[in-house]
Amino acid sequence: MSHNLWGTPEEAKPLSGSVRKLVSTMLGADADKVNRIPAAEVRLSEIRLSEQDLAALAGIVGKPYVSTEHEQRMRRARGKSYPDLLDWRSGRVIDAPDAVVAPGTEEEVEQLLRWCTEQRVAVVPFGGGTSVVGGVSPKAGTLRAVISLDLVRFDALEDVDTVSMEATLGAGLSGPHAEFKLAKHGLQIGHFPQSFPYASIGGYAATRSSGQNSAGYGRFDEMVRELTVVTPVGITRVGYQAPASAAGPDLRQLFLGSEGTLGVITRVRLRVHPIPEVKRYEAFSFPSFAKGADAMRHVIQTGTGPTVLRLSDEIESSINLSSTDKIGDSDDADSGCLLLTMYEGTAEHTESRHEETRNLLLSLGGVSRGEGPVRQWERGRFGAPVLRDGLLDQGAVCETFETATEWSNIERVKKAVTEAVGGSLAESGSSAIIMCHISHVYEGGCSLYFTIIAGQRGDDPASQWWKAKEAACQAMVDNGATITHHHAVGTDHRPWVEPDMGELGATILGSVKKTLDPAGILNPDKLF
Amino acid sequence: MSHNLWGTPEEAKPLSGSVRKLVSTMLGADADKVNRIPAAEVRLSEIRLSEQDLAALAGIVGKPYVSTEHEQRMRRARGKSYPDLLDWRSGRVIDAPDAVVAPGTEEEVEQLLRWCTEQRVAVVPFGGGTSVVGGVSPKAGTLRAVISLDLVRFDALEDVDTVSMEATLGAGLSGPHAEFKLAKHGLQIGHFPQSFPYASIGGYAATRSSGQNSAGYGRFDEMVRELTVVTPVGITRVGYQAPASAAGPDLRQLFLGSEGTLGVITRVRLRVHPIPEVKRYEAFSFPSFAKGADAMRHVIQTGTGPTVLRLSDEIESSINLSSTDKIGDSDDADSGCLLLTMYEGTAEHTESRHEETRNLLLSLGGVSRGEGPVRQWERGRFGAPVLRDGLLDQGAVCETFETATEWSNIERVKKAVTEAVGGSLAESGSSAIIMCHISHVYEGGCSLYFTIIAGQRGDDPASQWWKAKEAACQAMVDNGATITHHHAVGTDHRPWVEPDMGELGATILGSVKKTLDPAGILNPDKLF
Repeated sequence: MSHNLWGTPEEAKPLSGSVRKLVSTMLGADADKVNRIPAAEVRLSEIRLSEQDLAALAGIVGKPYVSTEHEQRMRRARGKSYPDLLDWRSGRVIDAPDAVVAPGTEEEVEQLLRWCTEQRVAVVPFGGGTSVVGGVSPKAGTLRAVISLDLVRFDALEDVDTVSMEATLGAGLSGPHAEFKLAKHGLQIGHFPQSFPYASIGGYAATRSSGQNSAGYGRFDEMVRELTVVTPVGITRVGYQAPASAAGPDLRQLFLGSEGTLGVITRVRLRVHPIPEVKRYEAFSFPSFAKGADAMRHVIQTGTGPTVLRLSDEIESSINLSSTDKIGDSDDADSGCLLLTMYEGTAEHTESRHEETRNLLLSLGGVSRGEGPVRQWERGRFGAPVLRDGLLDQGAVCETFETATEWSNIERVKKAVTEAVGGSLAESGSSAIIMCHISHVYEGGCSLYFTIIAGQRGDDPASQWWKAKEAACQAMVDNGATITHHHAVGTDHRPWVEPDMGELGATILGSVKKTLDPAGILNPDKLF
Repeated sequence: MSHNLWGTPEEAKPLSGSVRKLVSTMLGADADKVNRIPAAEVRLSEIRLSEQDLAALAGIVGKPYVSTEHEQRMRRARGKSYPDLLDWRSGRVIDAPDAVVAPGTEEEVEQLLRWCTEQRVAVVPFGGGTSVVGGVSPKAGTLRAVISLDLVRFDALEDVDTVSMEATLGAGLSGPHAEFKLAKHGLQIGHFPQSFPYASIGGYAATRSSGQNSAGYGRFDEMVRELTVVTPVGITRVGYQAPASAAGPDLRQLFLGSEGTLGVITRVRLRVHPIPEVKRYEAFSFPSFAKGADAMRHVIQTGTGPTVLRLSDEIESSINLSSTDKIGDSDDADSGCLLLTMYEGTAEHTESRHEETRNLLLSLGGVSRGEGPVRQWERGRFGAPVLRDGLLDQGAVCETFETATEWSNIERVKKAVTEAVGGSLAESGSSAIIMCHISHVYEGGCSLYFTIIAGQRGDDPASQWWKAKEAACQAMVDNGATITHHHAVGTDHRPWVEPDMGELGATILGSVKKTLDPAGILNPDKLF
């Protein structure tokens, strides 16, 4: 992945004329203002590790696996949020990890953490680098330097149990690499977040990732059977001796979502699934978001069994983000809200799941739109983030954030968040396109995923955005919603995490942190 | 519930002549040896609380809610394991809580825990008292006395959200009381463990209970949306601000399974379900346990959606425990292994779920046995524990225990546990009837539930049993299975919990314990 783009330059999609026109006329964005700075011209922070330090690190992991090269440090200096991408365009000095270190075994990770504890050097575990919440930003906290601990060498499919449908995977494997290895056994994980092309197995676990097929396969945290974790005080395997147990608290759930602050996840034993024999698709339209959401609720509460359920609101339905050719150019703008459904499994299973779901959706006011919109979404679904780079080139604000709440509370949260972010951007002088979809459903509630496009204003577009983002976060918290459904906490969401953690939660986590990481070397200034 | 029986004397079922004959001839049990001691003749330990202490307790909760009566102490002195029931027949002095205290609000619980911390008095939270692993035994640890903290006054249905299908229930509500209150809203929990008639909502949460309809409704821990917990350092609500979240570790999972050692659970917000419009039933027989288990595995891995899936092995299939008339008196002893299935929900949903499941089971070698066996099981399913009292009267050993493991490991674990427990009982001089069923299934594996009937031998039947139980526990651990799938840890399973907790797990939990309960007053000598 490029340091300053989503994906690689080869993946770039040019914006269509209609999008460029939309951005410049509707939002008043200024294409002349922004600038991509060539990699070689990017200025990085001074390296704070001595030759002696680097020799010590090389002594642990081997010389080829310690790097202070400009390119290597640059690629691990930021995640992929809109403010991250703005940073690369700012011309300012970018704080980067002082070195990149890639251990190959748990024992090397353990030695590394011991050395860093003794030497007061911070460690940021690094997988795919796709965080959009500051999860990999190289904070040293109060320590003297920071290394990026890249898990890329934990890349094995360790074992597969094709009867119990479980597999152990190295934490550094990317989504596609993991799927490629499992496919040889006729298996898949079934976890397809938008970051799938780059994000890693360890990152999925550390951040409680959720994929677009979560209606069928569940969240990533639900798939985890066992974790191998290296902490500054030792290596441990975390997980009951069975797929389910009553043998005390579930300690996996402390490390899932710990975002590298309690230990380095090196291996993940997962529930896996057969590659589906059949996939079936059908889209439906609903006259309003409320009616569509109500229909989704009935589907999940009845348990009719689609693997994908995805509802776009009126604005998102009319602006199809999955294809550049169609942005702002829908031929069917008044068609209401689009609900995508997909069914995976055996022929008999998918046929019956499709039929029951379809009958229910039609009885609740849905109108079939056929297979087309679902197949088009499936083809383009990992491409949307690439568009952001083009929009930034045009001087646009472009960012996403998400939350979740109970079904009975979604209208209130959607309205409050939309007003908060729209109001803040209006104050900055820009109108905004605010789109929302539901892509993760539970019996009790669902996620709300927002995409914002506006025009950059003022000398400091980052500050313009932070005001809008803060207004959105406060609206979530004030209206009883979680600060994040699957993007995680990182540095960005820390100020709003208290309602989710509970009153004593921070104290409990603090005591665990102190036990496992007494010197506080693991990912300072994140989560804690 | 009687102190020394499962249920009440009115619920007792007399053993049929054939069972008495089975026990006396096959197992050589001696009906003359055992004795029920009338309640008034039971000797309890001396009360170690002073008048001043009792006045202080009454000052916190009100005088009517503090008791040192013989009957009250006796009823909270033991759970319902076979060794517990033997204790009541032993004539020995029974250690009992020094007082029973029933606070009515979280604030009273908090004051109580503060007083106990200052006064070095242990606290055993008490719900239904149905533990079969020593979970409520009144251990004072190193403290000077122990009180039983009865949650019976936390008995409200606090609120119901019929859109999001969530409800908040007092921790002291029994299963039937909770269902009765929810039924007025057309709702049910869907949690039906064998302890259902007596066990409490708080107990379900504290022990990671799992009910007989878990294939459809999930384990109790999966239903919990939020917990209210009172600890010696404060009252807290634990749970994300949404049905699912990525806002850090899931702290509910520390309190679920904590068995009263980290705090007192006073309220539980739960996912609830509509009372099903339709129930459908069908039993199947399979030529072997292995073939039946393989068929169950295909059902759960395909996701065909029954709410009950229950397979008895050859011996349990031939000895129908749900009806006294039929024990050891099957008319169809060679019919193989019985698999029960049930389907709940709307008419369309249950019909399609039944059809898909049925087709799959028939294709895997199942033979339909009609509705009858499932309906008979459903009618009698909460009655089996009552039989144990009659068997003990006949001088029989009668106990159950359970484990879980991966599908690929079940034959090995079943064989090892059967041999271990059978071998130990044979050494004591008794043959044994060892039955096994699978009643909880997951994509990765399943539970194995064992029922043991043998003849008591020696002067100390408790010691005969502990040897057998220890052999079974060691066989589970040695063969990669969990020490408990849903009975929990209590005092009985502590020696075997390390593989489930992981290497660093005890250290982590120790730090949490120290933070929340610095004086160690909560349920000493359990779990920790």
